[in-house]
Amino acid sequence: MREVEVIGAGMVRFGKYNGKHLPWKSPEDLGREACKAALKHAGVNHKKIEAAYFGETYAGMPQVAQRVLDYLGISGISMYNHENACATSLASFRHAYFDVANGMYDLVIAAGVEKMGLVPAKKEGKGGGGMGGAGGLLGGGPIVMPEGMMFLQDVGMLMPAFFALLGRRHMEEFGTTREQFAKISVKNHRHGALNPYSQYQKEVTLEEVLNSRMVCDPITLLQCTPTSDGAAAVILASSEVARQYTTKRVRVAGSVIYGGEYKCSKGDFTSIGTCKKAANMIYEASGISPEDLDVAEQHDCFTPHELVTYEDLGICPKGEGGRLVDEGVTGLGGKGPVFNPSGGLQAKGHPIAATGVAQIVELVWQLRGECGPRQVEGAKVGIAHNGGGIGPGLEPGLLSLTILAK
Amino acid sequence: MREVEVIGAGMVRFGKYNGKHLPWKSPEDLGREACKAALKHAGVNHKKIEAAYFGETYAGMPQVAQRVLDYLGISGISMYNHENACATSLASFRHAYFDVANGMYDLVIAAGVEKMGLVPAKKEGKGGGGMGGAGGLLGGGPIVMPEGMMFLQDVGMLMPAFFALLGRRHMEEFGTTREQFAKISVKNHRHGALNPYSQYQKEVTLEEVLNSRMVCDPITLLQCTPTSDGAAAVILASSEVARQYTTKRVRVAGSVIYGGEYKCSKGDFTSIGTCKKAANMIYEASGISPEDLDVAEQHDCFTPHELVTYEDLGICPKGEGGRLVDEGVTGLGGKGPVFNPSGGLQAKGHPIAATGVAQIVELVWQLRGECGPRQVEGAKVGIAHNGGGIGPGLEPGLLSLTILAK
Repeated sequence: MREVEVIGAGMVRFGKYNGKHLPWKSPEDLGREACKAALKHAGVNHKKIEAAYFGETYAGMPQVAQRVLDYLGISGISMYNHENACATSLASFRHAYFDVANGMYDLVIAAGVEKMGLVPAKKEGKGGGGMGGAGGLLGGGPIVMPEGMMFLQDVGMLMPAFFALLGRRHMEEFGTTREQFAKISVKNHRHGALNPYSQYQKEVTLEEVLNSRMVCDPITLLQCTPTSDGAAAVILASSEVARQYTTKRVRVAGSVIYGGEYKCSKGDFTSIGTCKKAANMIYEASGISPEDLDVAEQHDCFTPHELVTYEDLGICPKGEGGRLVDEGVTGLGGKGPVFNPSGGLQAKGHPIAATGVAQIVELVWQLRGECGPRQVEGAKVGIAHNGGGIGPGLEPGLLSLTILAK
Repeated sequence: MREVEVIGAGMVRFGKYNGKHLPWKSPEDLGREACKAALKHAGVNHKKIEAAYFGETYAGMPQVAQRVLDYLGISGISMYNHENACATSLASFRHAYFDVANGMYDLVIAAGVEKMGLVPAKKEGKGGGGMGGAGGLLGGGPIVMPEGMMFLQDVGMLMPAFFALLGRRHMEEFGTTREQFAKISVKNHRHGALNPYSQYQKEVTLEEVLNSRMVCDPITLLQCTPTSDGAAAVILASSEVARQYTTKRVRVAGSVIYGGEYKCSKGDFTSIGTCKKAANMIYEASGISPEDLDVAEQHDCFTPHELVTYEDLGICPKGEGGRLVDEGVTGLGGKGPVFNPSGGLQAKGHPIAATGVAQIVELVWQLRGECGPRQVEGAKVGIAHNGGGIGPGLEPGLLSLTILAK
């Protein structure tokens, strides 16, 4: 396989493009802006793009790649549209990456587009500094429930409950505290306040987080990702072609997609077994170890998810996630790896299908040193961690890890 | 690239699994039955499957691969879910094919699953021997209209109108008759009557077709694909692994996916320019020419589409599609290539996301000589032709061609 580089990255600010919070924009508008920004960042003429890999989940739009790219004058090429719940566009990215690595194309675009506001939300958030609802419940759209999930819904086992159980158990086993979970929200909002692409660009205090409405103990409203619209895009190129466009080298060092397994956790309900397996796979394949990581964009849909991921990725020993939070290791200015310098899903927002590629966008900008006040100093290696759906054994339906390196 | 073979193929009978026409079944049920049939046909244990590539469009179900395969005991592998309108699962198939060809996996499954009945139909068919509506309008689901298509809808330019214009222009330019279009429906229903997997297993007469309700001149109701539920699956293997399972060799000789281009037809509105370009690409890449084709599964959503495809694929010179129909060349017993021995979309049905892989299923069975009364004698080379969506310039949003050969 050939080496592949990400030579351009662009996104729109995440938020609610409903004419109220932000100006009304269609999904196509959002997609086009992100793609134009990525093409411009790469210095690539749109006519050079050889294939497109898009993601779209909840807006119910057929052929999102075709409709976004037609208007940019890109047509007559292979176009793929992926869906994989919250891990949608990292599936698109991975498909793009391997097609270039395998020599099928030299220059392609991968993107994610989402307008969640198009579907009626099931539950609107009422408090918490404009937070738009305890997002991630199931996207809120006209979704046909999988059989197993209908049962899960009946017993209340939706996303917040799943991560709340994980958090509760972690508290029981390791003495992790509510404050430690809440501090993750404080940290990511602090990061988001430095990011012009973030939905919420406002710091929150520990008290505000702890006192916001309880969603599912120990998760309060300000520890939930909001409902967001958005789009993100990246340009991938073979190393040879990449040299024609930039001297800033950001190569894909590894990519793993792993479907949830039955009883993956095997009685250990304080970690995500799928993540541990995927981490082992990507570290082995890439030759990169947890100590090498400078920055991580992590799927912090609910705060306990970020805390257990410190352990599942091997950043710290099992049970010590809370200590990492208290010591400020994963925040900007900490010894790192810095988690979610973009603000993460908590503050930057979580337009389902755009999230995966948006994580790559932030990592590319970080590795190129283009992040201004939220720059992780000297960042050389970054990891994107993106989970989607509920699979068997209450593991994610899909766990995707991607490592980028200078 | 390595050679890839299709070593197993299975599907459920297409139809309406609503508890009235056929027993009620969930999309998961349909998908599982098709996957189990494909695994059994291949003689492959489910634990050997290394990756999955699924398609699902209108049922609005997240992570269809995960949910179908979990119940079959397949988990912990890479799973992708594609959407590409009516060409959805040929996109999945192509992704699967290239991943095996590029050496990433040796044994994978590709499938399409659709339950269109889950979404409220916009229009129910009223006549025509139980035909379920002038299908293909837009699937009838809770679909968010692309911007361009909102305009198209306002002026009535939906799928039947698009293919009706194509047919009308063909009549003007080449003297093609209403009867010639109608005879394609008669032929495909004759084929469908021989196929136990077909939604409509009943012949129709030329008079019945011509006298059924006018949908969009010259297309009458019995020249429209119905609304269908269904699922289809195939097992792909590297040639080396294929040898462990079967001596019946069905190799993938070529695969092209081509996004619709602006002004592709350039004033010629009697053909699909995207199809002609894709045909040139696949013939050149595979070394196979139109004369080599024995059998075709073609996207006959409306009868004019099949007629112009004879010309676009180079089966006959421009303008002579009608003559081919009159001479019975493309029907079972004709000199061939036989088009839609399965009954095609007209009679077998068109569960959007299942159609592409179902075309491959029929070709595999034909090339293995397993089609009983609808067998195309001595079939050695087959082509699948699958189009999806409306792209720029009123070309399909995507055109996919796949050639299989013994």
